[in-house]
Amino acid sequence: MSDSAFLSPQALEERLRAIGEERYHIHHRFHHLLHGGKLSKGQVQAWALNRYYYQASIPAKDASIVARLPTPDLRREWRRRIVDHDGDGSAPGGVERWLALTDGLGLDRDYVTSLAGLLPGTRYAVDAYVHFVKERSVLEAVASSLTEMFSPDIISQRVSGMLRNYDFVSERTLAYFNPRLTQAPQDVAFALDYVKREARTRAEQELVLGALRFKCDLLWAQLDALHHAYVAPGLPPPGAFRP
Amino acid sequence: MSDSAFLSPQALEERLRAIGEERYHIHHRFHHLLHGGKLSKGQVQAWALNRYYYQASIPAKDASIVARLPTPDLRREWRRRIVDHDGDGSAPGGVERWLALTDGLGLDRDYVTSLAGLLPGTRYAVDAYVHFVKERSVLEAVASSLTEMFSPDIISQRVSGMLRNYDFVSERTLAYFNPRLTQAPQDVAFALDYVKREARTRAEQELVLGALRFKCDLLWAQLDALHHAYVAPGLPPPGAFRP
Repeated sequence: MSDSAFLSPQALEERLRAIGEERYHIHHRFHHLLHGGKLSKGQVQAWALNRYYYQASIPAKDASIVARLPTPDLRREWRRRIVDHDGDGSAPGGVERWLALTDGLGLDRDYVTSLAGLLPGTRYAVDAYVHFVKERSVLEAVASSLTEMFSPDIISQRVSGMLRNYDFVSERTLAYFNPRLTQAPQDVAFALDYVKREARTRAEQELVLGALRFKCDLLWAQLDALHHAYVAPGLPPPGAFRP
Repeated sequence: MSDSAFLSPQALEERLRAIGEERYHIHHRFHHLLHGGKLSKGQVQAWALNRYYYQASIPAKDASIVARLPTPDLRREWRRRIVDHDGDGSAPGGVERWLALTDGLGLDRDYVTSLAGLLPGTRYAVDAYVHFVKERSVLEAVASSLTEMFSPDIISQRVSGMLRNYDFVSERTLAYFNPRLTQAPQDVAFALDYVKREARTRAEQELVLGALRFKCDLLWAQLDALHHAYVAPGLPPPGAFRP
């Protein structure tokens, strides 16, 4: 079989998983430092502050996908993600739970949500994601969500490692993560099924693979920006948060 | 005078210059290493390879501004920038001259233009610029070009330092930069006059200042990405150029 032949759905899934093996940010040095207890409180604050912008942008990203899906059942399925992140008005959503984390780390909430201390590198990477789902095909937009295939592992490492290693972190501070352990697999089941079904040519399958690579790279770039600014060499750019 | 009062054109220009003093990437450590002769050939290659994407995107950025300017004389003025970068079919433009630089450094031209080895951080920062000029007001789009107020100094440092310190660099390799020393001041004269004239409220003046800060930050972020990947700690992300 030549390498330009159509892949079976199973073979496509295997290639998607291989991308995670190579590029998912579970392999990034900053992640190892974070869950291994090697960061100062200020460095963990910088992580939470920057990651807030990612969390806060996810509903806009998902709403752009809902806006482009063609049928009520597809839109309902994807709308659930917006509910997960924005809440339903009673149970707090993911964005609110992330602010509980930045609160717990002693960051001023107005400062966090003002984005005044955000690293420009974080901003550009997150905005690249929001633009991607608007500008690329729906197939690629859906495929770019598939990093959630790999997120239960990184969340488990993060939560157990941070609870064990940092006295300034509690289960309550990390309440963001628990619901994600059940939400993410549900989201993945739908999105993976969708791309396996809707990528009807090898060229479309390559677009799916490219979209997942793109997404892995932008998660990685966020940790690169943090590592550069706050670990080594530790040079936050002008205007950015200083612990 | 309160700090919410309208600024005189001269006071606006002074605040613009102060932003350069604080945030222009002439103060970035990577720039000091580059012109100071402290980088290996591979590190200089990484810089040229990544900066190519910025150069190659400038005509798209400028065409978006031309598309939004309201009168023939304004569009003609800005169209000159596209000619400077894309050439006129006989004299090479800035993009072609940049490729002479990557050639001179021994990089394969197809590899450079494929963008295969580009740092994701470079891509996001450059794309953020292209999106900015499409999405913000024309006033902000024009103001974001004003980093050229500061570019003659950085170009002089770069050219003289690189010629003195690297035996793999020649005047011919650096031919990109000479025309910029006359083009940039001409561009600045127009853009600076435009923002001083068209920013008619203090709120609009603040947008002008914010646009220049934004632009400085994205030039800075490009050097952050290079420094992280190729200097310290020196960890290129998966898929990026390895010297």
